[in-house]
Amino acid sequence: MPTTTWNRHHILSLADFTTAEYDTVLQTAASFQEVLSRRTKKVPTLQGQVVANLFFESSTRTRSSFELAAKRLSADTLNFAAATSSMTKGETILDTAKTYLAMGTDIMVVRHREAGVPNAIAAEMDRLGVKVSVLNAGDGQHEHPSQALLDLFTICTLIDPDHPRLELLKGKKIAIVGDILHSRVARSNIWSLIASGAEVHLAAPPTLLPKLFAEYILEEAGDRGQGAEGDKLLLASPISHFPSPSSHSPNQKLFLHWQLEPALQNADFVMTLRLQKERMTAHLLPSLREYHQLFGITRAKLQLCKPNVKVLHPGPVNRGVEISSDLMDDPEFSLIQSQVTSGVAVRMALLYLIGSGKV
Amino acid sequence: MPTTTWNRHHILSLADFTTAEYDTVLQTAASFQEVLSRRTKKVPTLQGQVVANLFFESSTRTRSSFELAAKRLSADTLNFAAATSSMTKGETILDTAKTYLAMGTDIMVVRHREAGVPNAIAAEMDRLGVKVSVLNAGDGQHEHPSQALLDLFTICTLIDPDHPRLELLKGKKIAIVGDILHSRVARSNIWSLIASGAEVHLAAPPTLLPKLFAEYILEEAGDRGQGAEGDKLLLASPISHFPSPSSHSPNQKLFLHWQLEPALQNADFVMTLRLQKERMTAHLLPSLREYHQLFGITRAKLQLCKPNVKVLHPGPVNRGVEISSDLMDDPEFSLIQSQVTSGVAVRMALLYLIGSGKV
Amino acid sequence: MPTTTWNRHHILSLADFTTAEYDTVLQTAASFQEVLSRRTKKVPTLQGQVVANLFFESSTRTRSSFELAAKRLSADTLNFAAATSSMTKGETILDTAKTYLAMGTDIMVVRHREAGVPNAIAAEMDRLGVKVSVLNAGDGQHEHPSQALLDLFTICTLIDPDHPRLELLKGKKIAIVGDILHSRVARSNIWSLIASGAEVHLAAPPTLLPKLFAEYILEEAGDRGQGAEGDKLLLASPISHFPSPSSHSPNQKLFLHWQLEPALQNADFVMTLRLQKERMTAHLLPSLREYHQLFGITRAKLQLCKPNVKVLHPGPVNRGVEISSDLMDDPEFSLIQSQVTSGVAVRMALLYLIGSGKV
Repeated sequence: MPTTTWNRHHILSLADFTTAEYDTVLQTAASFQEVLSRRTKKVPTLQGQVVANLFFESSTRTRSSFELAAKRLSADTLNFAAATSSMTKGETILDTAKTYLAMGTDIMVVRHREAGVPNAIAAEMDRLGVKVSVLNAGDGQHEHPSQALLDLFTICTLIDPDHPRLELLKGKKIAIVGDILHSRVARSNIWSLIASGAEVHLAAPPTLLPKLFAEYILEEAGDRGQGAEGDKLLLASPISHFPSPSSHSPNQKLFLHWQLEPALQNADFVMTLRLQKERMTAHLLPSLREYHQLFGITRAKLQLCKPNVKVLHPGPVNRGVEISSDLMDDPEFSLIQSQVTSGVAVRMALLYLIGSGKV
Repeated sequence: MPTTTWNRHHILSLADFTTAEYDTVLQTAASFQEVLSRRTKKVPTLQGQVVANLFFESSTRTRSSFELAAKRLSADTLNFAAATSSMTKGETILDTAKTYLAMGTDIMVVRHREAGVPNAIAAEMDRLGVKVSVLNAGDGQHEHPSQALLDLFTICTLIDPDHPRLELLKGKKIAIVGDILHSRVARSNIWSLIASGAEVHLAAPPTLLPKLFAEYILEEAGDRGQGAEGDKLLLASPISHFPSPSSHSPNQKLFLHWQLEPALQNADFVMTLRLQKERMTAHLLPSLREYHQLFGITRAKLQLCKPNVKVLHPGPVNRGVEISSDLMDDPEFSLIQSQVTSGVAVRMALLYLIGSGKV
Repeated sequence: MPTTTWNRHHILSLADFTTAEYDTVLQTAASFQEVLSRRTKKVPTLQGQVVANLFFESSTRTRSSFELAAKRLSADTLNFAAATSSMTKGETILDTAKTYLAMGTDIMVVRHREAGVPNAIAAEMDRLGVKVSVLNAGDGQHEHPSQALLDLFTICTLIDPDHPRLELLKGKKIAIVGDILHSRVARSNIWSLIASGAEVHLAAPPTLLPKLFAEYILEEAGDRGQGAEGDKLLLASPISHFPSPSSHSPNQKLFLHWQLEPALQNADFVMTLRLQKERMTAHLLPSLREYHQLFGITRAKLQLCKPNVKVLHPGPVNRGVEISSDLMDDPEFSLIQSQVTSGVAVRMALLYLIGSGKV
């Protein structure tokens, strides 16, 4: 493992992650990626520690990834699933967390359908003065930091497998396509990509990328005083009509589009987002077929991008909706499998960084 | 670990536990509590052994506690949950147990909504002449021995952290408040507390503590010939009217009250019980609000107790029903978090005591 | 472990298993059976490898058996259950499998209610050029190889505990009784028993053993060119009327009966099959009572068999339906518990054989 200083106790959001922190995660994950290619894939780092997966919202994929990461660090794991728990008996979320604390949990990996639950648990742990760390595994429409970090790791290791680091993305054009409004993955990705100096282009139908949402992002990101160059993050254009034309200006890094094409133009990477089918019921979308026609990524549409463009998706994919089925399976374009593999290494890195100070 | 003789093969009930057995559990749990404070929290005691959690009734809290206890003893664990099992295919409970026996299970931790299931499984194992031990993790309204033992450990270690032992409770006044009638926790607690020589005061509305139930307890306890002093366990008063006045007499150890106040008067410890909201539907209770007013533990009501009184609850707590929310979180009064922590140490002790003879 | 050559990468079906392969499984399982009788029951064979139980159809019994087998080989295990998974989010089965592949799974144990799913996953893994092995843990009405192998192991170790091998069954008469038509267990058993040279007698009501099914079996088995003696597998008699009389001829090895008695006559082993109660609804059966009267195995009916006949059942048993309750519990006749025990050893052997080449 790289020798490094790591002071962050909980991983709840990427909004205030520093470049040094991103780079430490990337380098640590690269070390674990190397461990995973060895004959013996386990390391004794977290032996005797307990990682509790508190999944108030069910997820097999993310839970398995964290569980495997914990096991490969030799931690003991406890799985809590809301469906079979005493949540049905009326216990509060904080009481559940405190119960797992009292049992001896060292790290809590928390997923909840409401934004802010991991933060609330972390605040309670801090208030109690205990050393337990909380890792946000997805909270409502807020953030999903480990997903954004594994996306970052996947892209950076593609560019420089041995030394993945944030600056590799400087100047790259990255499109994020789909249900931006409701996506915790998109929100976390926006933080890391903006921090890297990449040019981020969001593309979605106006119902899934309203002006209000954009202003909220920009305001938050503006507060961070992003970069020394005094870059201002501006809307691509005043969004006052539909459809919105997009425009560029040299000092902008975040662009919004109500059409797909300008986002794809010369893009280095295209991040697609999962479309929750429930959105249809809420009349935010006409039909999956029409969505695919307008915003689905196909081989033909990728012609607009840089020649060696790559496509990402956090999974699970609705084949033929967010992305055409053949493209998803084409290793020349799709990074989807790499993302899953990166997920274990990145989560090992996160558990290692917040956990190793405790033993 | 203390060197000790332990002859009990199954742990099904505390009704016939001896003082020596209580003390062995308490001392062994204290040793494990010490292990849990070390850097390396695992011991190889049960390596290669299989602990199967047969939870025919679902429980995240108790199951996690047993699972962690088993893992810290280096046992392999198997989790059986009725919901996803072949119980739905019509297999009998004994057949399920025998299947886990045949797979190589060494210890079965059994929870079932019907009283007597763990005993039936233990009897079947004995009939088959196999060495498998059965640990009752809660059976209907019968017993929940590990909960009562962790309550006992929590109280005793508070009094003497280094040498918890049964005699520490002699002469202490302990109130058990709430739905005594339906509580397996109360039943197990009554056995251990009476055995300790504590003065046990049960307080509940008459619908949740009927005369018939009290007579049944007293008769059972009487049969045990508890103590050499010839103590007779008597009702606090003939329960023939409502509300029942309570009374004291020097040779009584178990007292029943249909009001809260006499039970709290000068109490050293107050054990609150979980109120199943289903009881309301069955017209045993007027409203949660009224229940809380009459039997809920609040800071004000604790004024009746000894100054350094402590409150326990087996969890999960209905905040503002059995106990006021602020009191629950006040470490000066609440032992609720300690109980959960004790739970892992006590369950390690129980698994160790019944399991270590086998390897 | 016996030193042996093992070239099979996936275990999907017994249809093309060779005698050498059967014998290797039997001998390897015998070695693990011996390990399981030791004080330390774990071996480090698969340390660092990941066994993912992908159970798209729920099963506690088989899943626990595979999980324990994997743990005793020191593998890390991941459990996927369809109910709580992203299957509900519309992900395809192959995408789920590829996600677990990308996480680093070495062996996938797959159960699905549709025939062919494990084969499809295995084909996809091969197409991708990855080293992951797939083990069929039951697919629709197709096959359940590990169950048939544990049945084989149970019978062979009864005959020669130290050297279980396929030829021990040569000339033995084995009856398979029950819902042959829908049973994946029966299909896998037919392959192994025919391969052993045993005389296999199928007995079921005509609705559960139609002529068409029999012809299909025979055709498939015929294609294999079973044995050097040029044995032809023929129907016991032209099945063109009901009830079917049964007949014997010296060169036949597979016999079909629409009545129980001729199948039991002088049988060495009786394999009963689980009756899915759903069959009743589909009007394939009159009543469980009548089924038991005609095809249920009882002490009285066993009088027809060889004196030391043994009865098997894959579990879970409907007591009093496929087999009388007292008979099931009689160790003189019932091998049901031995089957479960054999299951862990046989599954250790299978995971070892397909897994050990990878590390």
